[in-house]
Amino acid sequence: MNHLPSSFEALIHSLSQLPGIGKKTAMRLAMHIVDHKKNVIPEFLSSLEQVDAQLTNCTVCGNYADDAVCTICRNPKRRTGVVCVVESVKDLIAIEETGQFSGSYHVLGGLISPIDGIGPDDLRIDQLLNRIKGEEITELIMAISSTIEGDTTLYYISQQVHDDVSVSSIARGVAFGGELEYADDFTLGRAILRRTPIDQLFNGDR
Amino acid sequence: MNHLPSSFEALIHSLSQLPGIGKKTAMRLAMHIVDHKKNVIPEFLSSLEQVDAQLTNCTVCGNYADDAVCTICRNPKRRTGVVCVVESVKDLIAIEETGQFSGSYHVLGGLISPIDGIGPDDLRIDQLLNRIKGEEITELIMAISSTIEGDTTLYYISQQVHDDVSVSSIARGVAFGGELEYADDFTLGRAILRRTPIDQLFNGDR
Repeated sequence: MNHLPSSFEALIHSLSQLPGIGKKTAMRLAMHIVDHKKNVIPEFLSSLEQVDAQLTNCTVCGNYADDAVCTICRNPKRRTGVVCVVESVKDLIAIEETGQFSGSYHVLGGLISPIDGIGPDDLRIDQLLNRIKGEEITELIMAISSTIEGDTTLYYISQQVHDDVSVSSIARGVAFGGELEYADDFTLGRAILRRTPIDQLFNGDR
Repeated sequence: MNHLPSSFEALIHSLSQLPGIGKKTAMRLAMHIVDHKKNVIPEFLSSLEQVDAQLTNCTVCGNYADDAVCTICRNPKRRTGVVCVVESVKDLIAIEETGQFSGSYHVLGGLISPIDGIGPDDLRIDQLLNRIKGEEITELIMAISSTIEGDTTLYYISQQVHDDVSVSSIARGVAFGGELEYADDFTLGRAILRRTPIDQLFNGDR
C-alpha cells in the first residue's frame, strides 16, 4: 500500500503482530489511534514503557509483578500452606477471578511436552519443590489442562513431592450450567465413570 | 483486579480504549505483549512515537501524510483535474485499494449534519473550492455515503462549484455479486427506478 505514509504503515504492522488482529482490524485500530492521537498515544506510550521497565515475574510464584514479589505472595491474608499449580499467568488470573481460592499460586511457565522438547528442567518445577521444603506447604492443587501434556506434568510433579504433601487435581466433568448434549463423548464418559455420590456433591459446595 | 501489577493494569486499560477491544481481549493482547516483550515493545514504541511526531494531514487533500504533502498528491503519475471527494481517510483507502481511480482525492473530514452542529465551515469545503480555482479541476467524483448527511453535503458542494466543473456521484444500486433477496427495499426500489440500459451497462466496464 504505497498510498499510506510509512509511520502509519509501521503502526499497522505493530498492531497486526498481536494475536487475532488481522490487517483490516489493525488498520481500523491505527486510524482510531491517529484520530485520537492526543488522548490515546501518551497513555499508550507510558503504559508500554512502564511494562517494559517494571513488569517482571514474581521470584516466588512466577506471577506478573512490578516488584520482586507479587501482590498475591505479599498479601498476609492469603492462606499459607496451600499452593495452586498452574501452567500460565492466564490460568492464575482465571482462577483468581472465581474468588474461590485464597492460597498462593505457582506458575510453571508451560507443561512437559517431549514432542516440543520441553522437559521438567524447562519449567519452574525445581522452584516448586524448593518452596515445598521452605514454606511448609501441605497441599498442592493442580489446576492443569486435561491434555496429554497436562496429565504428564501432573503425574511427574505428584511423583516428586513427598508423601506428606497432599496433591489433588481440580474436578473434571461436565461444565456447571452446561447442557449434556453439548458435552464431548470423552468428558461425558469419564463423568459417568467418576460419578460423585449425591451427599458428597452438595457437601463439596459448602 | 487487585491481583494484577499496576503496570499491567495500565496496559490493559490502554488497549481496552481501542474500538472493538473489550476487557477480555485487552487482557489477552496485554499478555501477548508481556510474553513477547523483547520483540513487541520496541517496535510498538517506535511506531507510536513516529506517528505522534511525524504523522499529519496533507495540506492539499487532507490524507494522512508524513510530510506537508501526501504521497498521492506528490505522485506525478496521478491524473490531474479529477478529484474524488470523500468523507474520511478510511474511505480514501477503501477506494485506493480498488485500483480503479487514478486522480487525486479531497478528504472533507466529515459530513454536513445540522443535528450534530456540523456546518460547511467545519469541513474542508473551502479548501476544495480553492483547489478547484487553483488546480484547473474539471471533474469532481463524490464518493459520499448515501445518507441524509451525505446527500446534504453532496448537494451543498454541487451548488458551490462553477458550471464548468462536472460533478458526479459514485453509482448507487445493488451490490455486484450480491443476491437480490438480501438487498434492502429502498436500494432495490431505487435500482429499478434508475435502471441502466444494457448497452451502457457493459460499456461502462470497458
